[in-house]
Amino acid sequence: MKRSFIREILENIDNTTISFAGGLPDDSLFPHKKLQQCANKVLQEQNTLQYSTSTGLDELKQKIASFYTKEGFDTTKDNIMITSGSQQALDIIARYHQGKSITTEAPSYLGAMNIFDLNNITQDPLPLKKTGIHLKSFQKSFSQTKLAYLIPDFQNPSSKSYTQTKRENIANIILENKGILIEDAPYSDLYFEHKNQSISSMLPNNSYHLGSFSKSLAPALRIGYIRASQKLLKPLIAYKETMDLHTNGIAQAILNEYLKDSKSYKIHTLKLREIYHKKMLFFAKSLDEILPQFKYTKPKGGMFIYGKIQNINSVNLVKRCLKKGVVFVPGAEFYTNKANLNEIRFNFTHCTKDEVKKGLTIISDTIKEF
Amino acid sequence: MKRSFIREILENIDNTTISFAGGLPDDSLFPHKKLQQCANKVLQEQNTLQYSTSTGLDELKQKIASFYTKEGFDTTKDNIMITSGSQQALDIIARYHQGKSITTEAPSYLGAMNIFDLNNITQDPLPLKKTGIHLKSFQKSFSQTKLAYLIPDFQNPSSKSYTQTKRENIANIILENKGILIEDAPYSDLYFEHKNQSISSMLPNNSYHLGSFSKSLAPALRIGYIRASQKLLKPLIAYKETMDLHTNGIAQAILNEYLKDSKSYKIHTLKLREIYHKKMLFFAKSLDEILPQFKYTKPKGGMFIYGKIQNINSVNLVKRCLKKGVVFVPGAEFYTNKANLNEIRFNFTHCTKDEVKKGLTIISDTIKEF
Repeated sequence: MKRSFIREILENIDNTTISFAGGLPDDSLFPHKKLQQCANKVLQEQNTLQYSTSTGLDELKQKIASFYTKEGFDTTKDNIMITSGSQQALDIIARYHQGKSITTEAPSYLGAMNIFDLNNITQDPLPLKKTGIHLKSFQKSFSQTKLAYLIPDFQNPSSKSYTQTKRENIANIILENKGILIEDAPYSDLYFEHKNQSISSMLPNNSYHLGSFSKSLAPALRIGYIRASQKLLKPLIAYKETMDLHTNGIAQAILNEYLKDSKSYKIHTLKLREIYHKKMLFFAKSLDEILPQFKYTKPKGGMFIYGKIQNINSVNLVKRCLKKGVVFVPGAEFYTNKANLNEIRFNFTHCTKDEVKKGLTIISDTIKEF
Repeated sequence: MKRSFIREILENIDNTTISFAGGLPDDSLFPHKKLQQCANKVLQEQNTLQYSTSTGLDELKQKIASFYTKEGFDTTKDNIMITSGSQQALDIIARYHQGKSITTEAPSYLGAMNIFDLNNITQDPLPLKKTGIHLKSFQKSFSQTKLAYLIPDFQNPSSKSYTQTKRENIANIILENKGILIEDAPYSDLYFEHKNQSISSMLPNNSYHLGSFSKSLAPALRIGYIRASQKLLKPLIAYKETMDLHTNGIAQAILNEYLKDSKSYKIHTLKLREIYHKKMLFFAKSLDEILPQFKYTKPKGGMFIYGKIQNINSVNLVKRCLKKGVVFVPGAEFYTNKANLNEIRFNFTHCTKDEVKKGLTIISDTIKEF
């Protein structure tokens, strides 16, 4: 098996490297003081340190369920499984469906593509339009696979979001075919304008909806979750407990304590959205000034700006840039056939203004050498 | 896939049930105050909450490596991978070796048996003698499989420990066959007399040695690790990061902080060994008084007392006992063929003295109904 480009990069860069590569949140926005207080509270109880149940802490599942219900997607704690990040959530589902075929987006999330490979799931990647996945291709592919993996909100890497009409059309096709959707939604709370309706909410019995606190709170919590019907969720439990018994109990307890103050989390995500929106606008402005040959559309949320530079091989470009202390992800990484060599994904959430300017200038200078 | 008996039990019992089932540490011995201080310290840094590298925090790997080196088993941080509990450690290794055959002990650890099933690894379970696995059977089986899974220290569930001679013989067979050992060692620090030499230390390039902080410190940390040669460890990295990106960053930081005070951990495990030894002696005495028909050998460490009651089907017995508020694990669960119906595994670390007396009395009374 091949390692992930992004994970390998993370290990081979130092503090001085300017990284536009990973989907890293802005460290300075982590509510560490608040989480410190929560840790202090929960570690007063010795029981926090004991083994716990395979699907997660009841209280935490209850809180996650209530987030769904508040948005009009009726959910109880029995529809929730807490996982070691949403990466594991997807691996659990993929193991259960191993050997099948799956309809996916091109480009798609690298970590998901690796999971499908690992579980012998054959990907049928379909082109992404401005409005979401190409509908006719989806209809044709899904009638065969009956299983789809989509990231409808601020897709990784393309940053595209599905229109409401496209969401409804996709939901209809899935229901007509009595198939299943895996909807990956790590960026859904990072919207700049409004929150989209999940496709899963239109097909509650034919979907796994994957959420995460890595992007909206802190990656080191490693807490993700699956929202599914009890019928779909039940067979996954044996997989989850075989894989790691249960998700980290200390992190679950800290998060559960943090979410007791629902206002605090609301204020935090509001702040995150505002600041990330500003950071996106700054990155875009810097691109227009420093790297005008990069063509892209401004995203409406998420963590990435995706686009292309005509006549530039971005795999070669990143190799040279890395030597000069700047890194990004070449688009080819997000395609099963490693095509689309002039595409680039930039993360705009992690770097400071100075780093953005400096990093893009280095990239611009490097392009001149080609 | 079938769920684990123990995990399912854990979900279906309440606080009033007396459980001799799971390998649960004694809650009252968790160093929660100390871990609370460590959490307080590490959460002062926002960076603790960011994504980290796939194989674990360098500082923590360094400390784990030094435990091995101090025992005469030369190890550097590059020989260590930190995992989400040693359950995940085994799953990572099993995924890499999927589809192969493996020599195992009968009875064996239920969680491992499930992992082998999940990864299409065919188990060849061999009888366990007082001195460890039956040597001639091992020689024959291993010459075919070239892969073995053993728990030489205070084996789960049998509590048996391999003699030094048996360890050396096993090591020789593995080296002669150029095969690989997976040595699972979660209980190795819970010895009552002396620490055994790991078989892995006799074949550093032909072994994965699995350790865990779940039994010696706290299960909720969900921190385990693999010690292996760099050659064996390297191909596992892609699996680890595909499965959950990396192990919980908060828990790793807390543990790393805790281990900085090496004396504290030493004193903690010393105390644990003394108290668990006393708890084992009390459980054994209670068994002799209340359940004299239960035949067993006192363990020299670990968490379990294993034995049998002639002419009693322990699967039927546990079903009746559960209704009366007591639970243990019937031995049949630990055999691939679900045989040995009169065997029972009792955990002696978790319950209080009163619970032990009360629980065993209920079991004794229930047997009288048969």
